[in-house]
Amino acid sequence: MIQRPRGTRDFLPEEMERRRHYESLLRGVCRSHCFREVATPIFENTELFTAKSGPNIVDEIYSFQDKGGRDISLRPELTAAVMRMFVNEMSNLPRPLKLFYFGQCFRYERPQSGRYREFFQFGAEIIGAANAETDAEAIALAAAMVRALGLREYHLRVGHIGILRDKLRSMGVADHDMAEILQKLDKKSYDEAEPLLLARGVSDKDKEELFAMTRMVGGKELLPAIEGEAGDYLRELFAFLDAYGIRDVQLDIGTVRGLDYYTGVVFEIEAPCLGAEKQVCGGGSYTLSEMLGGDAVFSTGFAIGFDRILLALEREEQAFVNRSPDAFVLATGEDVRVESFRVASLLREAGLAVDVDLMRRKMSKAMKAAASTGARYAVIVGAKELATDSVTVRDMQSGEQKLVSIEELGSHLMD
Amino acid sequence: MIQRPRGTRDFLPEEMERRRHYESLLRGVCRSHCFREVATPIFENTELFTAKSGPNIVDEIYSFQDKGGRDISLRPELTAAVMRMFVNEMSNLPRPLKLFYFGQCFRYERPQSGRYREFFQFGAEIIGAANAETDAEAIALAAAMVRALGLREYHLRVGHIGILRDKLRSMGVADHDMAEILQKLDKKSYDEAEPLLLARGVSDKDKEELFAMTRMVGGKELLPAIEGEAGDYLRELFAFLDAYGIRDVQLDIGTVRGLDYYTGVVFEIEAPCLGAEKQVCGGGSYTLSEMLGGDAVFSTGFAIGFDRILLALEREEQAFVNRSPDAFVLATGEDVRVESFRVASLLREAGLAVDVDLMRRKMSKAMKAAASTGARYAVIVGAKELATDSVTVRDMQSGEQKLVSIEELGSHLMD
Repeated sequence: MIQRPRGTRDFLPEEMERRRHYESLLRGVCRSHCFREVATPIFENTELFTAKSGPNIVDEIYSFQDKGGRDISLRPELTAAVMRMFVNEMSNLPRPLKLFYFGQCFRYERPQSGRYREFFQFGAEIIGAANAETDAEAIALAAAMVRALGLREYHLRVGHIGILRDKLRSMGVADHDMAEILQKLDKKSYDEAEPLLLARGVSDKDKEELFAMTRMVGGKELLPAIEGEAGDYLRELFAFLDAYGIRDVQLDIGTVRGLDYYTGVVFEIEAPCLGAEKQVCGGGSYTLSEMLGGDAVFSTGFAIGFDRILLALEREEQAFVNRSPDAFVLATGEDVRVESFRVASLLREAGLAVDVDLMRRKMSKAMKAAASTGARYAVIVGAKELATDSVTVRDMQSGEQKLVSIEELGSHLMD
Repeated sequence: MIQRPRGTRDFLPEEMERRRHYESLLRGVCRSHCFREVATPIFENTELFTAKSGPNIVDEIYSFQDKGGRDISLRPELTAAVMRMFVNEMSNLPRPLKLFYFGQCFRYERPQSGRYREFFQFGAEIIGAANAETDAEAIALAAAMVRALGLREYHLRVGHIGILRDKLRSMGVADHDMAEILQKLDKKSYDEAEPLLLARGVSDKDKEELFAMTRMVGGKELLPAIEGEAGDYLRELFAFLDAYGIRDVQLDIGTVRGLDYYTGVVFEIEAPCLGAEKQVCGGGSYTLSEMLGGDAVFSTGFAIGFDRILLALEREEQAFVNRSPDAFVLATGEDVRVESFRVASLLREAGLAVDVDLMRRKMSKAMKAAASTGARYAVIVGAKELATDSVTVRDMQSGEQKLVSIEELGSHLMD
């Protein structure tokens, strides 16, 4: 037997229907917010990903040479591709552009529970403005998407990478010394941050204050104490979020986020039911376009881990009910077999989901097949009934049978 | 600027919305026929494709080694993957299985008009039975899909690979000599077929009769003359197709189809508006599962070239109208900016597609932005109106303006 590649999945009908259902819910929310869908290729020139994330990214992704010797890679995420598309094809369109996408991404890593080599991301980008409104719009969309899926418990956390920067600056740390210190703080590695701070002449008191800040998470009561531009920006952002009806936001002062390209607000949504791997959405404001050969354009965006949020819905035991056929059509014998297909075809054209016996089963077996599909009705086509342009309709739940004229069959089944 | 890889495409919002619309139509038809969607990975172990199509397929596809040294390939089509999935994970389910799929496929070939290295297929398979009913069901689904898209002119052609085989057998040609001759006939290379036939002792008269058959295309008036099992089978099939309401079928006697794994009926749908590359759908009955390590299971299936059929709709100038926002919300000034987001949020929750000014535009510019989105209404949030819990609604077509209470705003805009 030929196996599927390691870390990939097949989606069987029941699971696939569930996935399409939730995908469609998310698409609906994006459309209600007037975001518009785009799509980019499954693979890109490798330089796109190294331009965004540095040369080491190649070790973690599916990179290879095509037959023409070009370095290409399966996309590990979609923001870089959407920005490439923007720079190449959309930079003259009116801004801001509000775009969304859904598709497979790939990373070459050890497969483990809930992490796959082929996984799905649903994300959005607002390109061409960076103000509190665009950040609020992005966060509002992300929150509306999570709500639309029906996830009961989730935490939305918002931070601003400027807060700790401002603090360091006020303590006399030079900009070019910050990156190293911030990296340590991001990992909460205080032991390693301490000597770096002391070497820059930071006092013990300032140091302790800084460390305390990195642990601060709370509601909007924290807002007034935040100094500088980041504070003003966050106060504005929270006013917009409140207008959007988003009131359960946590302010995470210590947020740094590893990625260099974030420029201001960053946010995350977590589903506590997932335990250690609880992040289901992450995003923030960034500039990327100039790395890809375009002008500096401010953007804000996020991606939802589609597989992980579906796992969260499962953990919360959110019910999803697969659809069943409206009707299963069967013939009482060979003499009316062809006619049974005429009846099935008629009902399908009326918009009903109709299955039909393809196996020339005898009545009793065909009835069992009908039951196994979960069909609501069996439509039994027999010679005697056909003589009066009628068929027998059996309600599969109640067992009740009725003679129905073919003319009225469609509307009868739709009741 | 970093370019996208050769032979691939980006889909911008207008095109993407059109594609999703048609994708969704096709999915609806599959569901009304009680086919169920499945999905498989973008890449597979290369041996899957060589098992189906022979080792030379590797020259035409994206094949590479992953970091673990495994030979993997981007899928060039989906039937092999669906059969692998069936053999590994679905062989115990009740048959027949009626499955459909939609997704990207990849081939490494010279890009040319209408042919891409990344392209999309929408297909279906009925697994576990090979009789006239299943073939008819597959053909009926394909035809219903093409009709649902609104393609005006198309030709459905059905053949049976047994017809020419039966004819050759009746002329005394041994089964093991047939493949070579059939290949020549498939390409209508009569000059090359002739010496092969004469060497097998076929008379000139028989040979001419055979050649004439390969050119025979017509309606069901050709049916009575077809001898042998293939004739009986086709007569049965055409009776079912008639019951399905499919009456414009062409019978193509000379059909052979290059692929070895077809076992009986083969069919194609062509869109004449596409010129030389006019085939938009191809399929037939086959056994593949035993090549993949399973038992011999008869199946029938087809794939629609999604890109090509969309191109056909374009050539036929089938209109597709992109959706516009229901409303664009804007503020008359800074004092009510936050409130404008509250109004937008309210309307979105009511299910409307609502855009909102994110750029702090002045009234006249914001109104221009509203117009450029094609929004049906502009909702103008001003301090005076808000004092009476109202906003101004402007019909962007007529220019008519009206004061509407926020409470009634949603239902007003939905009219």
